[in-house]
Amino acid sequence: MADDKTIMTVAVLGGTGKEGSGLAVRWAASGYNVVIGSRSAERAEQKADELNAVVGAAVISGAHNTDAAARADLVVLSVPYAAHSATLEAIGEQVQGKILVDVTVPLQPPQVSVVSLPQGQSAAMEAQTYLGDDVRVVAAFQNVSAEHLKDPDHIVECDVLVCGDDKAAKAEAIRLVEAAGMRGFDAGALRNAIAVESLTPVLIGLNLRYKGSGAGIRITGITP
Amino acid sequence: MADDKTIMTVAVLGGTGKEGSGLAVRWAASGYNVVIGSRSAERAEQKADELNAVVGAAVISGAHNTDAAARADLVVLSVPYAAHSATLEAIGEQVQGKILVDVTVPLQPPQVSVVSLPQGQSAAMEAQTYLGDDVRVVAAFQNVSAEHLKDPDHIVECDVLVCGDDKAAKAEAIRLVEAAGMRGFDAGALRNAIAVESLTPVLIGLNLRYKGSGAGIRITGITP
Repeated sequence: MADDKTIMTVAVLGGTGKEGSGLAVRWAASGYNVVIGSRSAERAEQKADELNAVVGAAVISGAHNTDAAARADLVVLSVPYAAHSATLEAIGEQVQGKILVDVTVPLQPPQVSVVSLPQGQSAAMEAQTYLGDDVRVVAAFQNVSAEHLKDPDHIVECDVLVCGDDKAAKAEAIRLVEAAGMRGFDAGALRNAIAVESLTPVLIGLNLRYKGSGAGIRITGITP
Repeated sequence: MADDKTIMTVAVLGGTGKEGSGLAVRWAASGYNVVIGSRSAERAEQKADELNAVVGAAVISGAHNTDAAARADLVVLSVPYAAHSATLEAIGEQVQGKILVDVTVPLQPPQVSVVSLPQGQSAAMEAQTYLGDDVRVVAAFQNVSAEHLKDPDHIVECDVLVCGDDKAAKAEAIRLVEAAGMRGFDAGALRNAIAVESLTPVLIGLNLRYKGSGAGIRITGITP
């Protein structure tokens, strides 16, 4: 239980996906209230029931993305890049004054192992531009393979680089990293999400070439 | 001694710098002939003498960048980004038909801990565009702190991501990585140098925030 946290309710938009649901279970198990968001409220509720069974308590609920964002203190965005801008539109109002943790990686299928910078250079920067200055956007978790998250007891051999322009928002995100069982590092300005997001296609390529499914990174030479 | 290598003479342009001279010593110690290149032939020769004393054998020579590139089978470019295009101009002819390993990181001083993409998206891609298709450009070593390289016996806790569009050239670069005492991974297309180069300012920022000098990365979940 992260006793020093000030965030109590976390919405995980795209929480029906593998990455989002893995994070949701870990956060619920560590004491956060979690709302799964989806474009379909029904699918979100079904996924919430499923995940509550994993946690062994009814601590996760499900709702449409817009309602999930409205209910939460902090909103996590874990959607395919193709759904990124539509999801931002759906929550633009509800997320004002809050922290948005963007997990989105701007992959360009089918070329998912080659870096492809989006128009705004990174998904997280695009989110900040769209949502405006009253939303504190933080980029995190883009390099963590969903493979590692699905079993909540599995130790994840991957560090999380946390980028953002607001120190307090990054500290909150780093608490979420630790609640999910990983090490989080303050990786500087939101602009540095360019590096972190673009590392994901490189890791996907390493999985293909070296026959793995969970390539990740560890930071060496310093400790958090 | 890397017995399977086909490259015998390596030029290290910018080899009077910390990163380049650290690599030069390690390669010389593992059996490569090394030519240090600099804008000043005299400075290159002085540095070569200095490094030969470290290695304990006269296996490193010094020359002007252009001559160093002409003498080598493979050319390593380890210069500040401000000198990148001028150095490419100086060796454009001499490097044709060869492999160029670009170590350059497009930092924008004084903002060295914030990602700043160059006009061509990455220094390595700019090199490929300038030099043309007869030069096989490979990007490598950008994330290795010079701190770790200066003592040739020090074990470097940093993996090297090797990007390029030519498989055989990448294999040659990976042999150089191993000769320098590190693990090298085929990290995909040259375009993926965007991710690797932009990770360096993130690591510089981690050093500042977490009071270190040698932050690096290890790839987890797969083995080379």
